[in-house]
Amino acid sequence: MNILILSVGTRTKIVQYFKETLNGNGRVVATDMSELAPAVYEADKFYQVPRITDEGYIDVIFDICKKENINAVLSLIDPELSLLAENENTFKELGVTVVGSPFELCEISLDKFKMYKWLVEHGYKCAKSFMSFKDFKNSGVNYPVFVKPVKGSASIAIAKADDEETAKFLFEQRDDMMIQEYLKGQEIGADVYIDMISGEIISIFTKKKIIMRAGETDKAVSFKDDELFTLIEKFVKEAGYKGQIDIDIFDVDGEYYISEVNPRFGGGYPHAYESGCNYMELIINNIEDKENKKNIGSYDDGIYMMKYNELMIRK
Amino acid sequence: MNILILSVGTRTKIVQYFKETLNGNGRVVATDMSELAPAVYEADKFYQVPRITDEGYIDVIFDICKKENINAVLSLIDPELSLLAENENTFKELGVTVVGSPFELCEISLDKFKMYKWLVEHGYKCAKSFMSFKDFKNSGVNYPVFVKPVKGSASIAIAKADDEETAKFLFEQRDDMMIQEYLKGQEIGADVYIDMISGEIISIFTKKKIIMRAGETDKAVSFKDDELFTLIEKFVKEAGYKGQIDIDIFDVDGEYYISEVNPRFGGGYPHAYESGCNYMELIINNIEDKENKKNIGSYDDGIYMMKYNELMIRK
Repeated sequence: MNILILSVGTRTKIVQYFKETLNGNGRVVATDMSELAPAVYEADKFYQVPRITDEGYIDVIFDICKKENINAVLSLIDPELSLLAENENTFKELGVTVVGSPFELCEISLDKFKMYKWLVEHGYKCAKSFMSFKDFKNSGVNYPVFVKPVKGSASIAIAKADDEETAKFLFEQRDDMMIQEYLKGQEIGADVYIDMISGEIISIFTKKKIIMRAGETDKAVSFKDDELFTLIEKFVKEAGYKGQIDIDIFDVDGEYYISEVNPRFGGGYPHAYESGCNYMELIINNIEDKENKKNIGSYDDGIYMMKYNELMIRK
Repeated sequence: MNILILSVGTRTKIVQYFKETLNGNGRVVATDMSELAPAVYEADKFYQVPRITDEGYIDVIFDICKKENINAVLSLIDPELSLLAENENTFKELGVTVVGSPFELCEISLDKFKMYKWLVEHGYKCAKSFMSFKDFKNSGVNYPVFVKPVKGSASIAIAKADDEETAKFLFEQRDDMMIQEYLKGQEIGADVYIDMISGEIISIFTKKKIIMRAGETDKAVSFKDDELFTLIEKFVKEAGYKGQIDIDIFDVDGEYYISEVNPRFGGGYPHAYESGCNYMELIINNIEDKENKKNIGSYDDGIYMMKYNELMIRK
């Protein structure tokens, strides 16, 4: 059982957890375009690869799969998820399972406005979003609002606007900007695993986010709420996600609003793992053709996670 | 030899390095206003304290010094540096050395415009800075420019403006904004130790910053340049800094521009320590009334540092 993790970057924990779970029964191979990605030094083998947008990139990945007898491949960055899904059949011919969601869902999840429309059509509560300033003005949505790129990540270029002048100014800075209702509530993160054989939701781990930094959760605390679990199960099943995903949710006065989905390991996943939700094991079972059993909420309330910096030194 | 480190936050490495260097010959006591500050769990003892701006805060610190037989105190956050310097005499009466720079220098370092004026008056190259939009317009400085709060830190509310409309808009968002010439060059960080007995510069570690994230250096590589060392020695001596400081410098076409000084351990200090520049040892020597010997540049070129996230779990 050899696992290939693409674009590992600084996600050393994901590599470590796979190694820990494989426990010698297989190897973890990692790629990145930079040899200054600390996570590559945790892997059993590292390949420095071209930029994902470079021509021929996917062929380099296919070659690594053949050479290293890879059984499963996953990526840790959003723009690569669609690429893997798109090439699922070629991977299958090589005996490689793509751990991820279908192509169309990856595309929807990457585009905040497409996601918004999907959520509204299917009757889920979510922040009202606009691609036209006129539509926003006519909507009656109050300030403050968020102005953000429709396909952004890591909070890059996201700004809060308190009045029309600011909102208009920010909206006109780039062509791909979207205006979004500002939800005032508790931000929640959910790590979810959907069995790749049965399609059933196997595990859900939810946490309240306490402090954010550069779009990532710095501190969080685990909690459990059956109502939220039911909502997540319904949403994830209806959408059709597969494998591990990460969902951002807001609790606004006791009502849950779905904000975003990343169909990959989220930056806060280590909190779930350290609290007993080992999704590496669930993935490995699926690759070995074993279905996982439903086991939702098998962790303790009130487990706190605090991030800090570690460093790697290389000459 | 007991060391008190204030406002440790996420700086686990600083606590660890002091413990490592003391090697059992003394204790490290840490404070923070939050028990979710991961670094507090690395210390021998943790005190949860009020906000630094709360009345009576400094008395709480004095009490800890007495109770724990503290020999030296230092803080890891900018707004607390002046407070320690201001109370240096009371600390001295308690037998506690404040590891830091004089009050006036702490104040200048905190204020980007005061710092700019000091640098210009003393003939150092630096980015032209303006507190009035008219002065900026008359200066002939080209776009892009930075618009930032005069006392900001961690890149909060810093924005780049490419034209007058944007610059003016950003400048008018808050009362304390400053416009700064955009320096196009290699960003450099310097960790410097100035002996607290002799006032001599003991150690300089310089690194080129490769990637920044939320105002902190994510990746960097060490280098050495005698010309830069000479400039740093002259500047630091002329200004009168003491103990450990962190300087931001730009290399613009081979000319060094001084950008900012933090008179404390910088976020990138672990790179210096891991490369052999142990400032904890230099501090401990000074507290034991031993002068340190000048030892500038005693590290290797080309040592790369890469940060990644580690996490701490608490119930």
